[in-house]
Amino acid sequence: MLTEDKRLASQLDFLIEMDKLKSIQRHSLLVNGSRAENSAEHSWHLAVMAMILSEYAGEAVDAGHVVRMLLVHDIIEIDAGDTFAYDIQANLDKAQRERLAADRLFGLLPEDQAIELRALWEEFEARETGEARFAHAMDRLMPLLHNYLNEGATWVKNGVTLEQVRRRTAAIPDSSETLGRFVEAILAASLERGYIR
Amino acid sequence: MLTEDKRLASQLDFLIEMDKLKSIQRHSLLVNGSRAENSAEHSWHLAVMAMILSEYAGEAVDAGHVVRMLLVHDIIEIDAGDTFAYDIQANLDKAQRERLAADRLFGLLPEDQAIELRALWEEFEARETGEARFAHAMDRLMPLLHNYLNEGATWVKNGVTLEQVRRRTAAIPDSSETLGRFVEAILAASLERGYIR
Repeated sequence: MLTEDKRLASQLDFLIEMDKLKSIQRHSLLVNGSRAENSAEHSWHLAVMAMILSEYAGEAVDAGHVVRMLLVHDIIEIDAGDTFAYDIQANLDKAQRERLAADRLFGLLPEDQAIELRALWEEFEARETGEARFAHAMDRLMPLLHNYLNEGATWVKNGVTLEQVRRRTAAIPDSSETLGRFVEAILAASLERGYIR
Repeated sequence: MLTEDKRLASQLDFLIEMDKLKSIQRHSLLVNGSRAENSAEHSWHLAVMAMILSEYAGEAVDAGHVVRMLLVHDIIEIDAGDTFAYDIQANLDKAQRERLAADRLFGLLPEDQAIELRALWEEFEARETGEARFAHAMDRLMPLLHNYLNEGATWVKNGVTLEQVRRRTAAIPDSSETLGRFVEAILAASLERGYIR
């Protein structure tokens, strides 16, 4: 144990455990295509994105709340891994794996903070608040841009269709008209260039 | 250009440029020692840390403001690189390199947001607010933990002394008595184990 102060020790244990999110590989590549992105740097990118784009949310959102939600939304991947969007089999038991992961990971924290962070994650998953819907829009927009700028790398590799990407990115027009129009333009360009079928 | 909406195009250009922070290597290793950490995932880790530890700030701080500051504090490294704390030569022109980087990078944004983000970075650098002091404490505490958990990896390699680490981590006791006491305990243990001289 790093300190005899039990509360601080729990908090540091959690924060040190968080380092593992830097080793969780996602299926999307960096914009320069050099390697797969990890979930920690992805979470940072989305949080900055929310700071910059929150003006486009269709309903008034508390940008700080969206940022906090995005900072913790992938933590459960430390135990549950990143489930590829187009892998049907892996998506079957995704919810249960993620619930167990949340129990263990948030459970490292002192109880008040475990409740607080888990509530942020559950709010994100439930998509019932404007903040959660906008956070999902951010989580869909960045990979769309990465794929487009990488000439459809993971789309081509997996033979992904226009309808699949449109379904996958539906959170964007759901949350923002301006960003929804932008997505349609990117999808049209992707189809024309043969990045999607 | 990704869209004819000029404001959105600037914002997306900035956000895509941000992807490069994922390729800026720091001198500190991951907690598991497997590779050097990059500045994007480091920024994420500090932002989560600020969410969890803000109760220890010696003066009342707006945790959301600390989080925003930490999310942008290293952006300038995309142009200026990560300057190693113990490299005297590289630290001589650090301020000028970072100012030029701030001009270009924040300058990608629409003017109102360029001003807003640059102000966050300048507040961090100036260390004159409670939030900036606490953000610096976070920025010093995590690498200290990484080094300690890696048996002093970068300290041993560079022959770093107790006085150097104490000076380097002075922002922690400056901002928080509890965390300052914790640092002294880690330093004593590091000295005893031969991680620092």
